[in-house]
Amino acid sequence: MPETRQQAERARTAFLKLSSKTDRTAILKDIAGSLQARSPEIFDANRQDLAAAKDAIAPPLFRRLTLNESKLQEVVEGIRQVAAMHDPVGRVIASTELDDGLILHKVQVPIGVIAMIFESRPDAVPQIASLAIRTGNAVLLKGGREAANSNRSLVDIIRNVLADYGVADAVQLVSTRDQVSELLEMDDLVSLVIPRGSNEMVRSIQQRTKIPVLGHADGICHVYIDEAADVEKAIRIAVDSKTQYPAVCNAAETILIHRNFKESKRVLAALQNAGVELNIEEDFGLEFLDLKMSVHTVNSLDEAIEHIHRYGSGHTETIVTENADTAQRFLNEIDSAGVFWNASTRFADGFRYGFGAEVGISTNKTHARGPVGVEGLLIYKYQLIGNGHIVATYTGENARKFTHRRLGDAG
Amino acid sequence: MPETRQQAERARTAFLKLSSKTDRTAILKDIAGSLQARSPEIFDANRQDLAAAKDAIAPPLFRRLTLNESKLQEVVEGIRQVAAMHDPVGRVIASTELDDGLILHKVQVPIGVIAMIFESRPDAVPQIASLAIRTGNAVLLKGGREAANSNRSLVDIIRNVLADYGVADAVQLVSTRDQVSELLEMDDLVSLVIPRGSNEMVRSIQQRTKIPVLGHADGICHVYIDEAADVEKAIRIAVDSKTQYPAVCNAAETILIHRNFKESKRVLAALQNAGVELNIEEDFGLEFLDLKMSVHTVNSLDEAIEHIHRYGSGHTETIVTENADTAQRFLNEIDSAGVFWNASTRFADGFRYGFGAEVGISTNKTHARGPVGVEGLLIYKYQLIGNGHIVATYTGENARKFTHRRLGDAG
Repeated sequence: MPETRQQAERARTAFLKLSSKTDRTAILKDIAGSLQARSPEIFDANRQDLAAAKDAIAPPLFRRLTLNESKLQEVVEGIRQVAAMHDPVGRVIASTELDDGLILHKVQVPIGVIAMIFESRPDAVPQIASLAIRTGNAVLLKGGREAANSNRSLVDIIRNVLADYGVADAVQLVSTRDQVSELLEMDDLVSLVIPRGSNEMVRSIQQRTKIPVLGHADGICHVYIDEAADVEKAIRIAVDSKTQYPAVCNAAETILIHRNFKESKRVLAALQNAGVELNIEEDFGLEFLDLKMSVHTVNSLDEAIEHIHRYGSGHTETIVTENADTAQRFLNEIDSAGVFWNASTRFADGFRYGFGAEVGISTNKTHARGPVGVEGLLIYKYQLIGNGHIVATYTGENARKFTHRRLGDAG
Repeated sequence: MPETRQQAERARTAFLKLSSKTDRTAILKDIAGSLQARSPEIFDANRQDLAAAKDAIAPPLFRRLTLNESKLQEVVEGIRQVAAMHDPVGRVIASTELDDGLILHKVQVPIGVIAMIFESRPDAVPQIASLAIRTGNAVLLKGGREAANSNRSLVDIIRNVLADYGVADAVQLVSTRDQVSELLEMDDLVSLVIPRGSNEMVRSIQQRTKIPVLGHADGICHVYIDEAADVEKAIRIAVDSKTQYPAVCNAAETILIHRNFKESKRVLAALQNAGVELNIEEDFGLEFLDLKMSVHTVNSLDEAIEHIHRYGSGHTETIVTENADTAQRFLNEIDSAGVFWNASTRFADGFRYGFGAEVGISTNKTHARGPVGVEGLLIYKYQLIGNGHIVATYTGENARKFTHRRLGDAG
C-alpha cells in the first residue's frame, strides 16, 4: 500500500480509538505540559527555519514564522482552554420516544479523518491538533515548507503524548505536495479537508477534490451606505471595514453608496484620509487585500443587493442605515454567511463571535457556514435503543402507531 | 449561455425571491389544490407512460410508475402536511450579545439551488418540490425517462402555481443525462445534489461532482448477535432486519454471531424458514437487496466491530444482547449513521424516526447523516446588529472586552 494511504488508514484506526475509548482531556493537558517542558527543542527547530527563511520571505511572513516564548505561551494557554471545554463528543442533541421502550438519541460525534493544509504559521499545528483531539478526530497536517523543522518538532512532541494513550497516529504530518494530492483523492478515508492560506491555495484544493472542503477562497465583502445612513456611523464602519486589517478575508473590498445619500463625499474623504486608494466604478469582485477599495453608486436597495449577489463571494456584507425596514430587507434578502447592520465587516470572526476557537471561515452552503468553531468538526449519529422491537409491528393491517414523543433535550 | 446554465441561473434568481419575499405556505396550499383540480391531466400523462413501459419494465417498477387516485391523494395530503409545518426559514437558532447593543443571531436559511436526480417514481416530483418550497430552496429535477410524461404534467401544474407568485423557476425539470452532467459541474450555482435510486446511479453521481452529494450508495447493514443475546429477540430482529423488506438500504446483509452464543442454530433456522438463503463465511460487503444473507462467527465484540468497520458502509448496525455494557460499547465505538440495540435495522427511516418527511438517507460524515428530514435542506447565516460598532474598539491597548452573553434560545 502506498505510504500516504497507509498514513490515512492508521489515522482512521486512531480516530476510532480516540473517539470512543480515550481520555481526551488528559491528553490535552499532557500536551500543554509537554510543549512547555520541551520548548527548547521547539525554539531550536524554529531558529533553523528562520535562518533558512531570512532572505527568502517577506517580513510579515517572517514574523508569522517566528515562534518565541510569548507565542508558545499563548499556544499552551489555548490548549489548556480547549482542555477545559466541555467534552462535545457523546453529547445527546435530541431524544425521541418512538414507542414504549423504543428510544432514539441523536448523539454528537466526530467526523473522522480530517486533512488540514496551511501555510507558514507553525503555531497552527498545536492549535489545530488540540481542536481535533478535543472533538475526537484524527488529523493529517500539511504545513508550509518554510516551517518544516518547527512543525516536525511540534508534531513529534504531540505524538509522544498521544503514544502514551495508544493513539499516536491521530496526529500525523504529511510532508510533500504530492502526498496532499494523494490525500485529496481518498474520499473513502478522509472526510473533511480544511485549507487555510492564500486564495489560490484554497481554490486549487477545492478544484482537486470531491471531499468536502471547509473554507473559503475569496472574501469580497461589501459596505452598503443607504440613503438613510448616519454619516458618522458610515465613516466609522467604512474605515474600520477597510483599514482595521486590510490583508484579511473579512476586510471590505467595495463600498456601495445610495445615490440619495447626501454625505458620500465625507465618507470617501475619510477613507482617503485613512490611506485608502479609491477605484471609482471598477474592479468589482477583486479581493485587494490592501488599502484599495472599489466605489459604486446604486439607485436603490434592490440594486445594491443585486450587485452584492453578482460580485460578492457570500462572505460578509454590512448595511449602514437608520431605516429598520431597509435593514431588515438587507439582512433577509442577501445570501451571504454574514449580513450585518451598522457594524463593521471585520466582526466576522470566530473569536469575536464568542466561539472560543475558530476552525476557519466557510462560504459553503452545507455543513458549516461563516466563522466555524469546534462544531464544524462534529457530526452526529443516531442511537436507537429497543427491547426486541421490529418494524413488522408497525406495518400492514393492525399496524401499531409510533408515539414520536420528543423527550427533554439535553441542549 | 448554454441552456442548462441558464436554467440554473434562473433557479438561483427564483431561490433568492422564494427564500425571502414569498408566502411559501400559500404556494404549498395552492399546489395541493391545483394537483387535485387538474388530476385528470396527470392520469392521462401517467397512462401514456404506463402504455410505453408495459412490456419494457419489471412489475415492481411498473407499480412504482403507476399514479392512481389513491397515490395522488396521498401526495396531496403530504403537501398539505408540509404546508402546515412551522416555517423553518428565518428561525433564530441562537443569539449572543457580543457587547452592549451588538447582537449576533444565527438564523436558519435555505441552501440555494438543489439538483435532485431520481428514478421512475413520479410521486417523488411533488414530494421533493414541496419540501424544497417549504425550505425556500429552488430545485432542478431529473426524473426517470419512463416517467417523462407524468413528470412533465406534475411540474407544469406546480410551475403554474409558482408563476402566480413570480417564482416559476424555483422548480424546473431537467430532461437529459447530458444536462445532469452539466449541472454536476456547476459548483458555483448548484449547492447540493440529492440522488435517489440504484447504488450504481448514486455512485456514478458521487464520482462525477465536487458539489456535496446527500445520499448513500450501499447499505451494508449488520446484525450482531452477542453471546449474551436473548434468543427470541435475536430471531425477531434478524428475521425482521432481513425479510421485512429486503430490497431497501436498511435491510441487513450480514449476521455476525458470537462463538459462545448457544442458540445460533435456532436463529439461522428461523432465517431459513423465512426464506433466507444463508451464505456462510462469504460475500461480506455485498448488498444483496434480496433474501440472501452472509453469516460470520466472531470471537469477540472487538472482532464484530472490526468486521463492521471493514465491510460495512456506515449505514446502520444493530446488536442483540442483554448485556448493557457490551451494548454501550457497540453504540459508542461503531462509526455508522445508525447504531441500534435490540431493534431491527429497518427502523433507520425518516418517517419512523418521526421527521415527518424524509429527504433521503445519508452516509456522509458532514452536513447531514442518517435519515434526513427537512433540516438537511437548511443551513444558517449570521445576522449581526450593531449601532456603529467597529472592531478597532476591541483591539490594541485599552481594548474593550466582548461580553459574549448567550441570550435565550428560540429552540
